[in-house]
Formats: sequence, structure tokens, C-alpha cells
Amino acid sequence: MIKPRTPPGVMELLPPDQIAFQRMLDTIRRNFERFGFLPVETPVMELSEVLLTKSGGETERQVYFVQSTGALGKSEGGGESTPELALRFDLTVPLARYVAEHEHELAFPFRRYQMQRVYRGERAQRGRFREFYQCDIDVIGKDALSIRFDAELPAVIHAVFSELNVGAFTIQLNNRKLMRGFFEALGVADGEQQALVLREVDKLDKRGEGHVRDTLVDDFGLADTVVARILDFVKVRSTSHADALAKLDALGEGTDALREGVAELREVLELVRALGVPESAYALNFSIARGLDYYTGTVYETTLNDYPQIGSVCSGGRYENLASHYTKSKLPGVGISIGLTRLFWQLREAGLLDTAQSTVQALVTQMDAAHLPHCLAVAGELRHGGFNTEVVMEPSKLGKQFKYADRAGIRFVIVLGEDEIAKGTVTVKDLRREDQFEVPRSELAKTLRVELAQAQALSKAQPTA
Amino acid sequence: MIKPRTPPGVMELLPPDQIAFQRMLDTIRRNFERFGFLPVETPVMELSEVLLTKSGGETERQVYFVQSTGALGKSEGGGESTPELALRFDLTVPLARYVAEHEHELAFPFRRYQMQRVYRGERAQRGRFREFYQCDIDVIGKDALSIRFDAELPAVIHAVFSELNVGAFTIQLNNRKLMRGFFEALGVADGEQQALVLREVDKLDKRGEGHVRDTLVDDFGLADTVVARILDFVKVRSTSHADALAKLDALGEGTDALREGVAELREVLELVRALGVPESAYALNFSIARGLDYYTGTVYETTLNDYPQIGSVCSGGRYENLASHYTKSKLPGVGISIGLTRLFWQLREAGLLDTAQSTVQALVTQMDAAHLPHCLAVAGELRHGGFNTEVVMEPSKLGKQFKYADRAGIRFVIVLGEDEIAKGTVTVKDLRREDQFEVPRSELAKTLRVELAQAQALSKAQPTA
Repeated sequence: MIKPRTPPGVMELLPPDQIAFQRMLDTIRRNFERFGFLPVETPVMELSEVLLTKSGGETERQVYFVQSTGALGKSEGGGESTPELALRFDLTVPLARYVAEHEHELAFPFRRYQMQRVYRGERAQRGRFREFYQCDIDVIGKDALSIRFDAELPAVIHAVFSELNVGAFTIQLNNRKLMRGFFEALGVADGEQQALVLREVDKLDKRGEGHVRDTLVDDFGLADTVVARILDFVKVRSTSHADALAKLDALGEGTDALREGVAELREVLELVRALGVPESAYALNFSIARGLDYYTGTVYETTLNDYPQIGSVCSGGRYENLASHYTKSKLPGVGISIGLTRLFWQLREAGLLDTAQSTVQALVTQMDAAHLPHCLAVAGELRHGGFNTEVVMEPSKLGKQFKYADRAGIRFVIVLGEDEIAKGTVTVKDLRREDQFEVPRSELAKTLRVELAQAQALSKAQPTA
Repeated sequence: MIKPRTPPGVMELLPPDQIAFQRMLDTIRRNFERFGFLPVETPVMELSEVLLTKSGGETERQVYFVQSTGALGKSEGGGESTPELALRFDLTVPLARYVAEHEHELAFPFRRYQMQRVYRGERAQRGRFREFYQCDIDVIGKDALSIRFDAELPAVIHAVFSELNVGAFTIQLNNRKLMRGFFEALGVADGEQQALVLREVDKLDKRGEGHVRDTLVDDFGLADTVVARILDFVKVRSTSHADALAKLDALGEGTDALREGVAELREVLELVRALGVPESAYALNFSIARGLDYYTGTVYETTLNDYPQIGSVCSGGRYENLASHYTKSKLPGVGISIGLTRLFWQLREAGLLDTAQSTVQALVTQMDAAHLPHCLAVAGELRHGGFNTEVVMEPSKLGKQFKYADRAGIRFVIVLGEDEIAKGTVTVKDLRREDQFEVPRSELAKTLRVELAQAQALSKAQPTA
């Protein structure tokens, strides 16, 4: 007898949670499609040679390699060669490979979404996952891609998170050119040094301003006045659309890079507003840097106002060239990513998940085995009317059947006794409204649709955050 | 520069095909949920020890093992030990593990669906996949599970395949007890010998009746009369519901096993009819055996009437005990599986796929960069009205924008010139109906909804197979 268990670092859910998770996936997908993004799925396994072009360090150490039983046998002699296949560790490298491979079959700008699991051999730790969903969208241009696309992504983020019901959130915007320009003007011109300074600044929350200030002065040899200006800069947050524009103006003329970054951010802000995103949902945040060696323009992070400890729930930005390892074509792009497994886990930890509603909407009970054909017919009518319906196939006490429906989160319980069968009716118990009524069978689906519509109208009438 | 390419044996799709694939997945899921099945997802990686309890042979040779870079280094010394992780090769073993692991948290009968990819290190071959989707449903009982559940699955199969638009299909039913009883009565009592005889009989189509007859007489030592009865038996197909019942009656009394199998099939047939499955969609087929050491009662195969060469597109059956390797509880079940990747591939080969419609329903064109805020506002209104909408973000010639919409399968093209902006209208071109009209902006979404509803009503008025 083997103990049934999953490997560490994976998230496996019981049906009520799985339903909640699936609803989040559906909401994300619906909104990605609403904005005209096209679906792509790639194989979970890529050729190691293709997947591992970039980097050695961190990334390569976290890769899962794959070998079929046959290949495993063969490699025993050699031993040291890298296995031929590996599991993807993100969706960006597969996107680069996909776009380069299918370059001549795709229309550019290419707008794709992809929602699949990725794999990282991370150290096992609570809340860290080795298998997790990423939900990505990217727009890829050929040769060039207008800055305007950078404005679409906050609109998508706003649509997704408004519908996910996670409370108020803020899409934080910054621009790497603006940052570069700012640091250049202060004499921190070297890209690598800028990165080190930013990494240090990133520790503000953890170590406190005093510690960071000392390090920048002592270890980096920066003047006190320079450090003061850096610390002021990274604390900039806008409080409204007008304030964001004012904060950009306040940066003054500066270097070419600064001017370019300011102009880009200004255009993005204006279009984000034109796209109907309320100004309470976005803000400038000059401390956002993200993937220092990857992003080159706009960068995004999204935080939940009431749960700052969760960190960014949707991040991304603009990059110069997606697929330089695979093609000579220049493919600039802009994209965002939601790490859904982690987000789901954190929402559950915070008690923010609604797992009360089953996908099953109606349960047809059974009082007597002889009634089964009638029960099946009623179920068929409900299904035909669009209701997800389960039938009790083995008769038991009615109370037990009700209890099952209640625990399972099934809203409508249909009772069909001798009486009802004779009259051509059914009795419906609405467990949510704690209501009971009898209707002619022919009107059952229609009646339940009305009940649902009323409930929906009611819930929409409630003020939402 | 690395050549961008996928490993052999995977199916990667361009967006139009991916959209068609996703529609099939959605249709299957919708119908699985319609019948009250609950979603489950399991990790792609399982512990090897847990995954590989059964069998050694065929299955084990096809398994993909997984190792993180760290583990790869460590095992270089030892070399021969089995890697700790492996990719699932089906959804049944993970289901067994899941049900055993969560036994006390699940309600039985447990009705789950699961639609995920599985991995088999098969020899690379056209139309054979190493990564493919399985779409499974199973009902698992605790200690016992009524035969009635066996009748639900053909109803699900019927709902799914009716909506998949693959033409007429037949759900073929048989029962392993009936088969066992039949062979026992002929003196072929040993289970293993029955299996060998059935395997031989399976070659009827390929090798012809003469060859099979000779083999059964010469190699198996069966009497001519016995062989004749076997060949008659496996040719039995029913042509209607009444004919199916008559064919069961014609089997006579026979052994206990035969009587039990006949009674089960009879009950299943009656309930399948009560569930509203038209009798043209199901039939007895006494040659269906399936997974000889696994299924113990009802067995199913589904074939497309016009494409018999595709083979079974949805198969399954009843099994005695799901998870004997993981728990002492007896967990009988009944399930079916659709191999969607293979099915999709074959439908595409047969030219049966509709890849003409994009997920994007409307394209808002742009004639002048100065109009962009208006374009974005119109797009916002369309999205709010439920339409998947793309905006042309970089102005170009209108003809080019129309051509793009046409190629991409986008139905509605929205034009917004000086005139329209002044009047507060938009011009809509319906590329499907080759129709053009101007509407007030405030009525745009409503008007397009009416257009779509008309189109749908029209397509539903067409006779379907």
C-alpha cells in the first residue's frame, strides 16, 4: 500500500476551491478576450537547447529536466549531458520561441494571451510553488510598437481585477527611461550601478531609510545630497490624474532619457484615462523598477489597497526585443503577467475567497426508485434549459439529499413525489432564499431563470467597492 | 542563434486553430458541468513511487521522469535510482491518488471531471502525440455504485458530441460480464484465454475472417462450432432500442455472469432512453472489450458514423476498484475519456474544423491619430456591452485595416471618421453579411447584439444532422 500524496510545492484543490479557482481563470480569460487578445498554448516541455538560451544563474538552477524512461537508460553511460527536454519556467521564453518560429504566419502587432502552468524547482516553502499558473498577455510588434499599446494593458488589468472582486487596487506605473535619465543626471550613469542602487533602495521598507541612506553614502560613495534626491525620487506617488501629470512636470527638463520617459508616461496616462480607467485605480510610483535587465520603458505593478503585504498581483512592462536568441527580426513588446496560483493562495489565506457556490445549480431528488425515469426527464429539461443539474441516482432519505445539496452549495433542490408526478408539477426549494414553491414542470427552467435574474439584479444593486 | 522549434510529438497551434480547440474544450466542459460533474485539476508531476504502482511493461517504458537541476547533479554518483518525480501518463492514476488522499473530504458518489494534458514517451509518429489533452469524467462510489450511473455517461457523451458538430455518431455499448458469461458457456473459462481470443477477434477487420477463424482453431485449439459461435457473437450490432433488447433476449439463459451482464445492459439501455438519448445514437456492439484487465462491467466506445477510420473518439467503462494501491476502501467507478488532441488533429485532417471565427468580434479602425480617444471610448462601450473588441492603435490605410479584420475572422468593423464623430454615430461594416450601416454610438452594442441574435436564429433554423 502506497501513501497517496502529491509532491511538495504544488497546489491541489478540493472541488469547492477548484470551482473558485476556475471562476478566476474564466474571469481573466473573458477579460483578456474582451480586449482582443488571442489564445495561445505551448507545450509544457521545450527542447533544453531552445529553452535555456539565456542566463545560467538563478534560472538554470531552477529548471526541471525531463527524460523518458528510454532516454534515462541511454544516458547512464554518458551521465553528464543535459537532458534533451525541460519544463518551461515562464511563459515569456515560450512566447519568444513561438513568435520567432511562426513569425511569417502571424499578424503584427501580435496580441496573445496564454494561461498555463509553469515549473520552477524552488526550495519548498509555505506559499512558494513549484508548479503554478501564469496568466500572461503581450503585444508584440515587428520592428516597432507604438507606446499606445502600453496604455491598453492597465485597462485590461483594471477590467480583470474589478471583476475578480478583490477590493480596491492600484495599478502603479513607472518608466525605465525616466529612471535612467534621473540617475544619469545625478552622475549615476552606469547601468549596472543604477541597478545596484535600485536594489538597495528596494530595501527601504525592510531596513529603514537610515540604513539605506548609510549604505548609499558609505558603500556606493554617493554624496549626501545625491542620496537625498534619490530617496525623495523613489518616494513619489501620485494621488490623482492631474497630480500624476504635475509630478511629471516637476521633474523638469533633465537628460534625453528623462524627457523621453516623461513623454511616454504622459501619453500612457492620457490614454489610460481615455480608455475609461478611473483615476483612483492608477498612480505613478517612481520606485517601481522590475526585471532590471529586461524592461526598457513602461513598467507596471498592481497592489491590493487593503492587502499591501500580498505584494504585486500583476506586473509587467515594455521590452526592447523579445526573441533575439531565435530571430534577427526586432520584436519589441509590452506585457503583463498574473501569478494566479500564488494570488489564489493568498486570497484564500486572507479569507477573501467565495467558495460557497457549486457549479451544480440544481439537484433532482429521488424519493422512490420507481420515479427515476421521471427524475431523469426533469433533469433533462433543466439541462436543456441551461441549468447544471445533478440527479440523485440511488434513493435515500429526502433529508439526507437536502443536506447533501446544502453542503455541496447547490442552490435549487427539486422534489418529485407521487403527487407532483400525478399533477405534472415539481416542488422547488431554493436553498439560498430559503423559499419553496410548486411549478408546472413545463415552466420549471423558466421559473429558475427568473429566480436567478432577480438574485443577480439584487446583488448588482448593492454598492461595490 | 538557436533555431526556434518544439520537440517532436507535441501539437502547437496558431491562433485560429487554438480558438477552435478552445471552443471544443469549452463545449466539453460546459456539458460535463451540465450533468453535475465537478472540476478537479491535479499537478502534472506526481511522485514516481505513487504514479508507478501498477504494471511495469508498456506504461513504465513510456513514462517521462522529471528532475530539477539540483537533483540531476546529486544523482550523478548513484545513477541508477528512479527519479523522484514523473509526469502523469493518464488522468486515472491521479484520480485514484486524489480520491484516496482526500477520501474523507469528498462526498460519494463523487462525480468529477478533469481536462488536462498527459504525457507519454511514445515513438514519434504522424498523428501520435507525446503530450495530449484528456477530458475525463468518472463517478466513484464508496463500497458500491449503482449500475444506474452507467446510464448517465452515454447521456453526457451524447450531449458533448451533439454540440461538437462532428456529424452523426454512435455510442456503442457492451458489458464485460456478458462477454465473460458467453465465453464461459463455450468452455473458454480462463480469463487470460478469453483475453487472447478477444485480441485475436479484434483483428477481424485487418486480417479477415478466414485468418482469424484459422488461428482460433489451429493455435487456440477451439472447435469449429465454437469458433463459429464466437464470430457470430462479436458481429452483433443492434439497429434500434427494441432491437437491442431483442438481441439481449436472444442470448438466452446462459451462465450467472451472462445473466448479470444482460440485466445490467438492459437497465442501462432503459435509462439511457429515459435520459432522452435518441435511439439512433446508441447501439449494442458485442465486439467492444476495452482494457481487458481493467474494466469489469459496462464498456463504451463512440464512433463517428461518417469517419469510422478515426476509431473510437470517447471510450470508457465500469471498474471494480479505483484505488486499491492507495487505500483499503473499495471504490468502484465508471468513467469515460475523450482524447481531445488526437480528435482535434483528426478532425482537422478530415477538413471538419471551423476555424473561420475569431474570438475577436469587433475591430475599431482608426483613420487619424487625433481620433484615438474617440476610438478607445467606442471600444470601451463595445466591451462593456459584452463584445470582444480590438482597437487599431497605429493609424494606417483603412483598406489595410479592413483586410486585417477579414483575414483575422473579425466580423464587425467599426469606422469612425470626422463626420461620424461630429454626428455622434459610427459606421459598422458586417463582414459576414457584407452589410454596412450607420448607428448612433449609444445604440452600437445593442444593434450588434441584434445582428448576432438574428444570425444565430438563422443558423439554428438550418436542419442539423
